[in-house]
Amino acid sequence: MRNLNLAQDDLLAMPRLVRATLINGLSGYKCPVLIGTVSGNGQTNLAIFNSLVHIGANPPLLGFIQRPLTVDRHTYENFKASGYCTLNFITERLHREAHQTSAKYERSTSEFEAVGFSPVFDESFQAPFVRESPVRLGLRWEEDHHIRANDTRLVVGRIETVFLPEPMLHEDGWLDWDLVDVVASTGLDTYHRAQRLSRLAFARPDEPLRELD
Amino acid sequence: MRNLNLAQDDLLAMPRLVRATLINGLSGYKCPVLIGTVSGNGQTNLAIFNSLVHIGANPPLLGFIQRPLTVDRHTYENFKASGYCTLNFITERLHREAHQTSAKYERSTSEFEAVGFSPVFDESFQAPFVRESPVRLGLRWEEDHHIRANDTRLVVGRIETVFLPEPMLHEDGWLDWDLVDVVASTGLDTYHRAQRLSRLAFARPDEPLRELD
Repeated sequence: MRNLNLAQDDLLAMPRLVRATLINGLSGYKCPVLIGTVSGNGQTNLAIFNSLVHIGANPPLLGFIQRPLTVDRHTYENFKASGYCTLNFITERLHREAHQTSAKYERSTSEFEAVGFSPVFDESFQAPFVRESPVRLGLRWEEDHHIRANDTRLVVGRIETVFLPEPMLHEDGWLDWDLVDVVASTGLDTYHRAQRLSRLAFARPDEPLRELD
Repeated sequence: MRNLNLAQDDLLAMPRLVRATLINGLSGYKCPVLIGTVSGNGQTNLAIFNSLVHIGANPPLLGFIQRPLTVDRHTYENFKASGYCTLNFITERLHREAHQTSAKYERSTSEFEAVGFSPVFDESFQAPFVRESPVRLGLRWEEDHHIRANDTRLVVGRIETVFLPEPMLHEDGWLDWDLVDVVASTGLDTYHRAQRLSRLAFARPDEPLRELD
């Protein structure tokens, strides 16, 4: 295959939307999640995010990137105000409805109702989970950081509850993602099915690499 | 399948390593990349990172999470000092060697040599690319943020060069990741092959969702 080598000037010369689509695609495979929150007056909100990032295991922290706050950002406002949000992984069967949550609904419309997902409330947790999702996390607000370069924010939450199919969790803590048909995504609109190639042992210098299982 | 519901106390009761493995797995599918840098005295460094995150398209920004700086962090030091790093996507054929770069080599050892990758220098760019990788990005240092909760850092870079197979880039900016056998990963040690399910149109309230292509 012929290769392309794009420099800064080539990127800047592209039509704005073409460049945005390209740059959104350049981070490769991600794991989209539905973030569930609730506002002070009890209105539930559900939004798809594809910028989930592992921050650390001890304490258990995850982050995501929040677009600039120049328009209403229900997820961010609700998470910050209530202190809680849920992350709900998306399966192949759910991915169309999950994508539809990205439509710009009015604040008074719950995306749960608009796309047909069922909110579940856990008594210890002030945010709605998605009943249809097989893997769900409950997060508590930890901190956020303003990224000066483009006015976005890194939002960091602490994992407080984990819900998943029992066979997915192995004794050593390893999760078998092949057991659930959770999708990966690229760009803003493309969804993928993934399949395990290998699990590799901890790497050490001067030791041949071993495959686990 | 029976479900597990783990609360904070269940997580804390797990042996430390089991909990770390579980939490590392909970962010789902990610896109591991090899980050190439060079030190002031010309020593090349190559390290696998699995916390790549899209920050924004305009300007084109990507981020990754840097572990605490309590031990030597060659990638972070070199990127900050030189102002440049490269991100090199990992194919199925390369994923074992890529994983091996996570072994704790001495500072005087280049992971390029240790695992058998070829560094390529672009004249406009002070960091080595991986010749064997089909998709490579050149980043310039933008900013970093200290995450107080666990002493890690979000490192943000600006995409300055893009190298990829020409057929991968469509006219509208969309990238066909199925054309290259780039791997996804879960946890710290598991690699996956991905395959496209669908590309969905921009979602609007009160409009049925369309599939693109």
